[in-house]
Amino acid sequence: MRTVDLRSDTVTVPTPEMREAMYQAEVGDDVYGEDPTVNRLEELAAAKLGFAAGLFVASGTMGNLVALLTHTQKGDEVLLEAESHIYYYEVGGMAALAGVQPCTIRGVRGKLTAELIKNHLRPANIHFPNPSLLCLENTHNRGGGSVTTPQEMEKIVQFARESGLHIHVDGARIFNAAVACGCDVKELVKGVDSVQFCLSKGLGAPMGSVLVGSREFIAKARKWRKMVGGGFRQIGLMAAAGIVALEKMVDRLAEDHEKAQKLAAGIAEIPYLNINAEDVETNIVVAHLKPGVMTVSEFIGRLNENGVKANGYGAERIRFVTHKDVNNDDIDYALRVMSKLAQRVMF
Amino acid sequence: MRTVDLRSDTVTVPTPEMREAMYQAEVGDDVYGEDPTVNRLEELAAAKLGFAAGLFVASGTMGNLVALLTHTQKGDEVLLEAESHIYYYEVGGMAALAGVQPCTIRGVRGKLTAELIKNHLRPANIHFPNPSLLCLENTHNRGGGSVTTPQEMEKIVQFARESGLHIHVDGARIFNAAVACGCDVKELVKGVDSVQFCLSKGLGAPMGSVLVGSREFIAKARKWRKMVGGGFRQIGLMAAAGIVALEKMVDRLAEDHEKAQKLAAGIAEIPYLNINAEDVETNIVVAHLKPGVMTVSEFIGRLNENGVKANGYGAERIRFVTHKDVNNDDIDYALRVMSKLAQRVMF
Amino acid sequence: MRTVDLRSDTVTVPTPEMREAMYQAEVGDDVYGEDPTVNRLEELAAAKLGFAAGLFVASGTMGNLVALLTHTQKGDEVLLEAESHIYYYEVGGMAALAGVQPCTIRGVRGKLTAELIKNHLRPANIHFPNPSLLCLENTHNRGGGSVTTPQEMEKIVQFARESGLHIHVDGARIFNAAVACGCDVKELVKGVDSVQFCLSKGLGAPMGSVLVGSREFIAKARKWRKMVGGGFRQIGLMAAAGIVALEKMVDRLAEDHEKAQKLAAGIAEIPYLNINAEDVETNIVVAHLKPGVMTVSEFIGRLNENGVKANGYGAERIRFVTHKDVNNDDIDYALRVMSKLAQRVMF
Amino acid sequence: MRTVDLRSDTVTVPTPEMREAMYQAEVGDDVYGEDPTVNRLEELAAAKLGFAAGLFVASGTMGNLVALLTHTQKGDEVLLEAESHIYYYEVGGMAALAGVQPCTIRGVRGKLTAELIKNHLRPANIHFPNPSLLCLENTHNRGGGSVTTPQEMEKIVQFARESGLHIHVDGARIFNAAVACGCDVKELVKGVDSVQFCLSKGLGAPMGSVLVGSREFIAKARKWRKMVGGGFRQIGLMAAAGIVALEKMVDRLAEDHEKAQKLAAGIAEIPYLNINAEDVETNIVVAHLKPGVMTVSEFIGRLNENGVKANGYGAERIRFVTHKDVNNDDIDYALRVMSKLAQRVMF
Repeated sequence: MRTVDLRSDTVTVPTPEMREAMYQAEVGDDVYGEDPTVNRLEELAAAKLGFAAGLFVASGTMGNLVALLTHTQKGDEVLLEAESHIYYYEVGGMAALAGVQPCTIRGVRGKLTAELIKNHLRPANIHFPNPSLLCLENTHNRGGGSVTTPQEMEKIVQFARESGLHIHVDGARIFNAAVACGCDVKELVKGVDSVQFCLSKGLGAPMGSVLVGSREFIAKARKWRKMVGGGFRQIGLMAAAGIVALEKMVDRLAEDHEKAQKLAAGIAEIPYLNINAEDVETNIVVAHLKPGVMTVSEFIGRLNENGVKANGYGAERIRFVTHKDVNNDDIDYALRVMSKLAQRVMF
Repeated sequence: MRTVDLRSDTVTVPTPEMREAMYQAEVGDDVYGEDPTVNRLEELAAAKLGFAAGLFVASGTMGNLVALLTHTQKGDEVLLEAESHIYYYEVGGMAALAGVQPCTIRGVRGKLTAELIKNHLRPANIHFPNPSLLCLENTHNRGGGSVTTPQEMEKIVQFARESGLHIHVDGARIFNAAVACGCDVKELVKGVDSVQFCLSKGLGAPMGSVLVGSREFIAKARKWRKMVGGGFRQIGLMAAAGIVALEKMVDRLAEDHEKAQKLAAGIAEIPYLNINAEDVETNIVVAHLKPGVMTVSEFIGRLNENGVKANGYGAERIRFVTHKDVNNDDIDYALRVMSKLAQRVMF
Repeated sequence: MRTVDLRSDTVTVPTPEMREAMYQAEVGDDVYGEDPTVNRLEELAAAKLGFAAGLFVASGTMGNLVALLTHTQKGDEVLLEAESHIYYYEVGGMAALAGVQPCTIRGVRGKLTAELIKNHLRPANIHFPNPSLLCLENTHNRGGGSVTTPQEMEKIVQFARESGLHIHVDGARIFNAAVACGCDVKELVKGVDSVQFCLSKGLGAPMGSVLVGSREFIAKARKWRKMVGGGFRQIGLMAAAGIVALEKMVDRLAEDHEKAQKLAAGIAEIPYLNINAEDVETNIVVAHLKPGVMTVSEFIGRLNENGVKANGYGAERIRFVTHKDVNNDDIDYALRVMSKLAQRVMF
Repeated sequence: MRTVDLRSDTVTVPTPEMREAMYQAEVGDDVYGEDPTVNRLEELAAAKLGFAAGLFVASGTMGNLVALLTHTQKGDEVLLEAESHIYYYEVGGMAALAGVQPCTIRGVRGKLTAELIKNHLRPANIHFPNPSLLCLENTHNRGGGSVTTPQEMEKIVQFARESGLHIHVDGARIFNAAVACGCDVKELVKGVDSVQFCLSKGLGAPMGSVLVGSREFIAKARKWRKMVGGGFRQIGLMAAAGIVALEKMVDRLAEDHEKAQKLAAGIAEIPYLNINAEDVETNIVVAHLKPGVMTVSEFIGRLNENGVKANGYGAERIRFVTHKDVNNDDIDYALRVMSKLAQRVMF
């Protein structure tokens, strides 16, 4: 049976070119700063994002955690969206390990605005933790891959600057945002203090993220990375795949977005599903089950029986993510499975 | 000039009877468990609330912090109301010191329901912190002194039990709730795991709270209290005042509620203020400034010039709290000040 | 039966003058900074120690914890003596709550020197936590009340200054040290960043300590005190006793030292005990049980049966502490009890 | 110029066979548990060590950190050797992230005994953190690669069991210990609760360690690994190299030990160095500079100028580590460099 895995773009497997690059990679001990391939990846990533320095980390979660540890002091308050990945999906590490309290702000499809942030920013008071950091997520995962544009970012950055807040961008899918905006990725992170982006999602590398920021920030972050156990040795092997991801795989994200549009258009025709097609901005498609038809886990179970994989998103939503390892035929197949299912569940 | 301090019931000063009791109090070293007056207060408090054991703590914040430290493990998630005192006013200690992540739930005037809690309770998943504790606040401070009734509590307790959640009640003003419901305070905390209540608010003691729970819970809590520095020595002196508070001051809370009603009725006549009089359930009165008249800090400043003190509550709300050290004449005076101010600001 | 409690100077009960001062004390809400008696105590304490500001805290442990939280950042290393109270007796709060790692240094009877500290101070390295704070204890409890003199302090302070280390002095019994040295207490803490001293030990107040430091330090410490739950309300009642302790009870510590000398001299005559009489510098007397006679807990049990209380100190040591509530007759009685015991255990 | 890198066995680069295995590796998304090569490595490692389950982690530090987080609760005390890697080289993460206080015990060349541990194990007391975990390091890095034998382990395990302590073994170089003892590695970890060992040191893999324990322990550890950011995706690529390391590289550690003996014998002839040749048990050689000759950093600098790399170990010690990427000729070369240096520095 055909398998179409739409659970996440994290399931992408490395390309032959990546395997080849890994095979050939020159390596050294990265804890001593001597892995030339890691150094090249870190410089390349920093330059692409418009920062002075980069740090290769094991995962997006590690990149975010290290950023939190570096930017904040214990007892600080961090402002972030109510369903942001850092707050929602990172096991509570911000409190457990960094000791910072989240101030959650409900955005519109995950998107914050300067106005929303302002409403939640409390003044200095002996009863309140000190708000020191604002985290943004672009594109926003649980917001359905929503994009915060350079224009929207500019206003937020200005407000944060005036308010003394540092800004970290969880840019796990920042290149999807750039491709959707048709802009240089630098424009999306201008004026922020740090960005983390993933090599292992749409860009197809087997693992890893890069955290970028100022030289001073990255020097501190490197020590926190060591503390959480992210000090690798001859990890240039993996960095080699990351370099391929960064140099060769960015432009093709547009194809993932087209496949997402195709999937969304098809889902709009499925009688037991609702979708706001205009909300599909990048490679994430969120559909709602109409009430009374079946539960999310039943639906996912039936898709699975037919080789189509997707993830539940709370009580009535399903998330599909397009990526390099599903093609247009796969999308057609997935839609056919959902259509056939309609005949069974609706009549 | 007359001073009418409506900022909080924490400003109450000890009664002569309390001072006398302190003067006479028999004391010992409480770290060794040898202060007879402390032991008497702890037993009295536990019995009143229907628990096996009690622990005298320096403040409501310490009682809540010690409860969090005792109930949870690092990395747990704690469910609580979005403007609850523990989350809002305790300096982020739950994250900084206990290492637990808040899952904030927006209640109705601070009141949670089983349904609301259920919507926020996430299943076991490698991405989610482990939800282990539910905190409730009764009466709810930022909810305007709102009361959760025994009937409402029963449903919440049942849901929490079924879901494997422990329950801690921040009952800083639990006796106000009991008086408002006309019930025994025990009925408000039946089935929960721990309660903290304050001696130093409406009950008029100079300081202190008592945390109550099972013997095993309190034995553990005692060690956490030591760690945070709450191990006192001859604190029976203060416990003596607490005993007077608990034995003599509970019933008179009804008078505070009457004064709050009087104040609310008067405020309803003030042209530049809005108030939902039916929301005044206990000793807290929250008024809204009509838009465009003046800012909260201007308003508070002008009250202050006339000897009336109140606290701002965000961008447009003012909180007044009645207590034993303001009488009906004081309320009349405060209302006259606000009325006179109307002539200046409105015309 | 007579009771002679030599377990600790924490067992002292307040004097009639203290009770009277408490009865009369003018109070206010200290969280609002409005308790005049607290303010007076904090100013008095700061002035006596030679600092700009003070903060009344519930206990020595709270004073030390708040100092650690204020001086350090998470992930720092704190250098302190291997049996110092902060490391040994404060429940691991430095790690659990402040997130700092102890670098323990074995002193001579608890006393550190610049040389010893230097040997443990590691250079900057990605593998090492950042050493930011040095804690000293004077007099040193487990060191048998040993005194670090102004001359010894001067060298340590100079080394710490050159090394970029802040210094906090756990001066729970700093006035005992000053009396023993015959110097102004200021000379013992010159050049350090903060000091905590206890009102509730030899000075006889029922509870409390004061943390002193610069204005900026104390402003930050005040917020950390709030987080740990040490924000009191009308605590001027207790501060009143603290003022009496500070003004009237310091000079009489010399009597406690004399009683300790008397006790030590007597113990030197007890055949089953060893003591280095010259090590008794203040009000703490540590005796060693000779091997094979009985265990520490047996010994303490037998003393107890005769009304004499003392604390064990590891496998073979017993600690006796003199204070205002034992007089010379009590010391004689305790020695008689130990002598009689000799006849039973030795022959 | 020839380079002989004796700084650490972490500098080893992957073998051609490892690169080939990586190139061919079958992968999947390990966060979903779907990477077959990772699963194979984890099972293989667990079986080799005699445990039920394994967890692939980024580094030894991550393996140790995750073990600490899984075994302990905040506020616990962890007993470990005074110069153990966890305490000495892991950036204070045990306090900063796990919130546990180290109880450091000075071993003999890093080796602990049941007797030493017993002397440091304190009874339950409200002042003491709860001792819950004992960490051992075998071989011991700063102890000069010293080996704790199965017989020594047995006594420690028995004592820990009787005392209610869990045991974690930092077995970064546990295979070196097994080879030195001529025993199955299982005999070295019988009865302990968890072990971490490194693939990236003498075994030559480019990165990674495996943490092994019971199924329940590893299930919990997996969640903590996610929190610290160690949840990888298609990391089977790296696991493939780890499998080669585990299957092919263990026996050759004996060669590293022989090279260490050769190096030690040579160093014994160098006039400005001291060495206890009998202390060289595995692949670590620690030499002492004789006083007054030159500083450690001067010595290392001069070696460096001649292509020989080594690490300083405090004020007068130098550590050399042998591994697969230095051969006997390299050892001869390093010794020649040191000999020639003697002529310059000694005469």
